[in-house]
Amino acid sequence: MKKKHESHLQFQSQLQFLNHFPLRNELPVNSILMVDQQLLKFPKVKRWLQQFPFVYPVNAGESLKQLKSFEAHLQAILKITESIPTKNLSFIAVGGGSVGDFVGFLASVFKRGAPLIHIPSTWLAAIDSSHGGKTALNAGNFKNQIGTFYPAQKIILCKPLLFTQPAERTREALGEIIKTALLSGGTLWSQISKEKKFTSQTLWAYLPALIAYKYKIVLKDPFEKKGLRSILNLGHTFGHVFELYYQIPHGVAVNLGLLMALRFSESKKVISSQSLQKILKTPLLSKYLAKHEELKPLLKSHKKMLPLLTHDKKLSKEGHLHFICLSAPGQPHVSEVNLKELFNFAQQTFS
Amino acid sequence: MKKKHESHLQFQSQLQFLNHFPLRNELPVNSILMVDQQLLKFPKVKRWLQQFPFVYPVNAGESLKQLKSFEAHLQAILKITESIPTKNLSFIAVGGGSVGDFVGFLASVFKRGAPLIHIPSTWLAAIDSSHGGKTALNAGNFKNQIGTFYPAQKIILCKPLLFTQPAERTREALGEIIKTALLSGGTLWSQISKEKKFTSQTLWAYLPALIAYKYKIVLKDPFEKKGLRSILNLGHTFGHVFELYYQIPHGVAVNLGLLMALRFSESKKVISSQSLQKILKTPLLSKYLAKHEELKPLLKSHKKMLPLLTHDKKLSKEGHLHFICLSAPGQPHVSEVNLKELFNFAQQTFS
Repeated sequence: MKKKHESHLQFQSQLQFLNHFPLRNELPVNSILMVDQQLLKFPKVKRWLQQFPFVYPVNAGESLKQLKSFEAHLQAILKITESIPTKNLSFIAVGGGSVGDFVGFLASVFKRGAPLIHIPSTWLAAIDSSHGGKTALNAGNFKNQIGTFYPAQKIILCKPLLFTQPAERTREALGEIIKTALLSGGTLWSQISKEKKFTSQTLWAYLPALIAYKYKIVLKDPFEKKGLRSILNLGHTFGHVFELYYQIPHGVAVNLGLLMALRFSESKKVISSQSLQKILKTPLLSKYLAKHEELKPLLKSHKKMLPLLTHDKKLSKEGHLHFICLSAPGQPHVSEVNLKELFNFAQQTFS
Repeated sequence: MKKKHESHLQFQSQLQFLNHFPLRNELPVNSILMVDQQLLKFPKVKRWLQQFPFVYPVNAGESLKQLKSFEAHLQAILKITESIPTKNLSFIAVGGGSVGDFVGFLASVFKRGAPLIHIPSTWLAAIDSSHGGKTALNAGNFKNQIGTFYPAQKIILCKPLLFTQPAERTREALGEIIKTALLSGGTLWSQISKEKKFTSQTLWAYLPALIAYKYKIVLKDPFEKKGLRSILNLGHTFGHVFELYYQIPHGVAVNLGLLMALRFSESKKVISSQSLQKILKTPLLSKYLAKHEELKPLLKSHKKMLPLLTHDKKLSKEGHLHFICLSAPGQPHVSEVNLKELFNFAQQTFS
């Protein structure tokens, strides 16, 4: 009797594209909305939230994900929702990546699993982090050591909420957008690589296709058992290091990491210089990919970054890691790479 | 594309009955053994553990399950296992119910799920709590509000470890044993109900059959979505209240709860007085079921217990709950019961 049981988890979340803020009767009756408090400064958002009895503002960012403060949040939530049976409580995350990670984890362990809905407020969360069911908390300096696989039942892509974001947030999403376009190839690549300008309208128009690609990969290997999800890490190996070391936004760091990954693919002859030039000359990449000059100063302290990388991946100094290269749009390659080789390359190419 | 994914969780854990303490090469290479420190006072156990590089003694009991101290444990574990890649770390719980709940939860959220092995040290854990994949932590006074479904890959039933227990722990297991016998009926009931004496040897002999029954029920409804697992709560509705209110051991409390459940089944005419008498006169129940006289003083403060029950189940004072009755051995019945009715019955029958 050794069969595996059908999971209670459904990784293909229900997607809802809305041109309005969801009304109270469009969400579960007993819901608690956990909202990035920065959003409350927008009068529209504030007005929208007034119809809900349980709103819990949170201070978004890495501090929200600290395990240390998790119990205090939990107690507060149990207190304010005392009047309703906890079995019927649904959690709704309204915010960006950190809010989604935190609320996702909370819902996954609350009474061994409570319904979860994401209403992402940033483009990064709308395109990437709210999908795929990964939740995470930090234990002190150990980032994302604690987590669960717990896909949202529903993800609401709410146009007026996403459009409240200032223009710089649009820029922050471009790292993940370029990554997705490069990985997917095909129609998405041929269309999006021609775009010369990314406004909120452009992003909204491409949102369904970008999300669809993420699910295509996630559904092949939802629990990351087969390594098939790892291609989504294109640009992330160095990206994470830059993010941690320089405390720059995730999207910007990934963008820099993508340039590194493309150059490394070229140096390993995974992609020809000619093919790479063609990619780099598309309107999308020529305008929005990080520039060589931006990367150069960041790599000056690469010797200090090495331990960060070994620690992040828990590798020995001589360790190998899986690095995602690209041979053409739509053709990622997983390469076994030696850490020292990676840094030697970085040093030679960019300094 | 709305199919559910095969779970990464396998609820039928691999079972291993061992006549010796498992050797280092019988456990995963990179293991951390989280051990009830009370067990270290047994020289045999202490000697056994000396071969393992990572042993983490814990103070068993409800305090171990406090969410508040979870991060400190996690940091300590990350520190002592620093020399090994965390991806390869297996968690091994050596202890009773609280150790299993704690380590099970820890493993379930560590890097989104690390391998877990239970080596139960109490009969209660060996029969019941180590199987079925429920983990739990407490948030302050809110018991078991946080948890996951996370079955162990393997459960090692280690004879010399279980036999270190003093005789009173054998008694504590009898509540769950009587429950299992009553629920299962059939051969298990007809054999075990004739037993006049329960020693460690008796328990060891019945262990495979008792465990097999638990899996039979769990596998029908691993995530408790269909209510089929709820019959395992026979004796637990009142049992939990006694446990909380009088701070008595779980097994003893369940034993008292079983007497209540049987009497209530009789009062509701789910079982005839004649049939109940026959059950109560078997050697097992006549010797080991809690006595009317033991129950009586406990119910004196039943008015104080009512809020405990409503709080535990998050019910209104007038609320209904699912109460497990019995019409015959092997024939549990789920009854929708009014809380007031339940307490009126208790008052009339036992005071």
